[in-house]
Amino acid sequence: MAEHLTPQEKIALITSNLQETLNPEIVEDVIIKQNRPLIIYWGTAITGRPHCGYFVPMLKIAEFLKAGCTVKILLADIHGILDNLKSPRELVKHRTDYYRFVITELLKAVNVPVEQLQFSKGSDHELTPDYVMDLLAGASLFKPAVFKKAAAEVVKNTEEAPLSGLIYPLMQTLDEEYLGVDAQFGGVDQRKIFALAKEVLPKLGYKERAHFMNPILPGLAGGKMSSSDPDSKIDLLDTEEVVRKKLNKAFTEPKKVEDNGLLSFVEYVLLPASALRREAPHFEVQRREGEPLVYHDIKKIHVDYEADILTPQLLKSAVASALVPLLQSIQAAFQASSEWQEIEKKAYPPPPLEEKKKKKQKDKGTGYPGVKKGVGNGRSGAEEGVDKLMAKMAIVAENNPPSS
Amino acid sequence: MAEHLTPQEKIALITSNLQETLNPEIVEDVIIKQNRPLIIYWGTAITGRPHCGYFVPMLKIAEFLKAGCTVKILLADIHGILDNLKSPRELVKHRTDYYRFVITELLKAVNVPVEQLQFSKGSDHELTPDYVMDLLAGASLFKPAVFKKAAAEVVKNTEEAPLSGLIYPLMQTLDEEYLGVDAQFGGVDQRKIFALAKEVLPKLGYKERAHFMNPILPGLAGGKMSSSDPDSKIDLLDTEEVVRKKLNKAFTEPKKVEDNGLLSFVEYVLLPASALRREAPHFEVQRREGEPLVYHDIKKIHVDYEADILTPQLLKSAVASALVPLLQSIQAAFQASSEWQEIEKKAYPPPPLEEKKKKKQKDKGTGYPGVKKGVGNGRSGAEEGVDKLMAKMAIVAENNPPSS
Repeated sequence: MAEHLTPQEKIALITSNLQETLNPEIVEDVIIKQNRPLIIYWGTAITGRPHCGYFVPMLKIAEFLKAGCTVKILLADIHGILDNLKSPRELVKHRTDYYRFVITELLKAVNVPVEQLQFSKGSDHELTPDYVMDLLAGASLFKPAVFKKAAAEVVKNTEEAPLSGLIYPLMQTLDEEYLGVDAQFGGVDQRKIFALAKEVLPKLGYKERAHFMNPILPGLAGGKMSSSDPDSKIDLLDTEEVVRKKLNKAFTEPKKVEDNGLLSFVEYVLLPASALRREAPHFEVQRREGEPLVYHDIKKIHVDYEADILTPQLLKSAVASALVPLLQSIQAAFQASSEWQEIEKKAYPPPPLEEKKKKKQKDKGTGYPGVKKGVGNGRSGAEEGVDKLMAKMAIVAENNPPSS
Repeated sequence: MAEHLTPQEKIALITSNLQETLNPEIVEDVIIKQNRPLIIYWGTAITGRPHCGYFVPMLKIAEFLKAGCTVKILLADIHGILDNLKSPRELVKHRTDYYRFVITELLKAVNVPVEQLQFSKGSDHELTPDYVMDLLAGASLFKPAVFKKAAAEVVKNTEEAPLSGLIYPLMQTLDEEYLGVDAQFGGVDQRKIFALAKEVLPKLGYKERAHFMNPILPGLAGGKMSSSDPDSKIDLLDTEEVVRKKLNKAFTEPKKVEDNGLLSFVEYVLLPASALRREAPHFEVQRREGEPLVYHDIKKIHVDYEADILTPQLLKSAVASALVPLLQSIQAAFQASSEWQEIEKKAYPPPPLEEKKKKKQKDKGTGYPGVKKGVGNGRSGAEEGVDKLMAKMAIVAENNPPSS
């Protein structure tokens, strides 16, 4: 469909709904002067389980694809391990595969053609000699404090963060060059890392990239999202019943549109998603009495919410009704793929297995459960590398129990 | 000759003259229980021009070799670049070759068989995926402050040091594993890095190594050694005339044995060197009047120096007379090797070329002089890697003139 857009329309679509764009002249140069698709990179660290919050960047990525861009998704497996070691290491490989399935289906659910979508893993290029040389050269450019400042909004608890937390922003910077992109897309919380990238790349002899920033939205299910509270996030595989239950439990202040996770989700996900499917934004609220409320833009929704015509209860129910079909599309793909189901089992083992693991972890001297110690089995070197890294990180974990 | 030594004699020779040894039980285990040669690593960052100060670690290495150890010399080319970017990068490769020649001849000059001596370069293993994974895993173990503390005595001006200065100690730690050694040898200024290594390696699932520490000696030519003052260092290729001139200019307090660079050089270089050649320590001082003073241990030398029987002038002259034959041995090897001479020219270009370079560096937009931009010419990948890194670092330097 991008063929029907003029260069100006493409640029407008690419930069729409963003909180900020750095170096828009790069976008114009590529699309108008060079007359080729803009190549954009979005990275996601492989950590927990992708939830409904992933719809937000996906809807922007859908617009990039609609504008004819090539979008490269970096499944940052090594970043996931470095970022405070949040992710259980032996699961990173399986989770990387799971993320790939989920992201593809998230986009398909909103009717976006995925031919121009490319995936790569951090471990594909982040362990190559050239990359490492650039990493060391980049680390020679600035004092640690500069990297610490860049990481401040992304690496949680900077004061307690390990040295790897300072290396993280530099890797994200170099990924722009090694993925061969024109621009990087991320949340506005990445702003300081993007500013570092603008400074670092030219000093290493590489060209500066454009940066697109999405606003950071409040969590869909209200309040702060917490991985320890499963109810704070709606999983992409949650049933309609569970989705409605979680949304009903969500705290939503009546008449207040600021910091309202549900309204943000309508604005940044449900309205644009409906536009992708119907060619025009559409949001419908069924009522027990009277005609349904039908909206085509967020402003009217805000007006009605402030007037309490659109009550929190009505909004929750309408969001669920619009969200559930999107999830059902993903879940149908999941049910149809035994490969994906298999991966899901390995990536997110059920609680009894987790319990067993904890028990085993206490037995010093036994191997870390589930870790294959870098056995070559015909896969690519990079994949073997991740296995080895995971085995290594497991040893690190074993020798450094969380209590120490 | 090691064949004639008992295990206990070997251990005594290995640990003699050291200021400190960490984990001596590792040495005993290898030599007594495992009954195999101890493998020791000594690393030197490729920076300026090796001078007479290099005799100090070499004499200890000579003892290791005499005790039947295998000694691995790490020519730390990447470290040399990282360590505050002290070294001009396009010269690092040639200097690495120069260091290899010099170290070999330093040992030959004191009659040490070099069959058990092995060289490797940092770039041989420090850019491999396994090493990088361990580097990232190691960086996840501790806060930046821990690495900063470890680097404090080695990285000059820690407050101003770049992020790479914190990565440096971790690389030195991992080198122990990747060189496959039993022990690392270095100056006592490395103590905090060695302590870090003891802590890091077991956490990464590797075995702890022993550490041997030489005392840090005052400079031979008196006062603080400074690379900007060529007279403060005696080059290994300096002629007898230059050596005598530099030593005569050296500040040496009469009667004071503490902090006396000349006396330290006698104790740690000239006496052990004579022992290697004559089977017993020997130091002779010619006098205008009377018999020469002949010494066989440092204690008697100290007594005579404190009594001003051995005056600073006599000492300088005697040190020169003992040092010059050692240098002449190295210089004869240099004269006999056109390959080494060629390398010396490339590694240390004469001043006019340096001048020209400075001038050219001011012309923004032109390429950095003398840098081959990673051209493949049939050499090993690692060597090409260093070329590329040097080219990269040259770009870094070009885009970041020292004034900024």
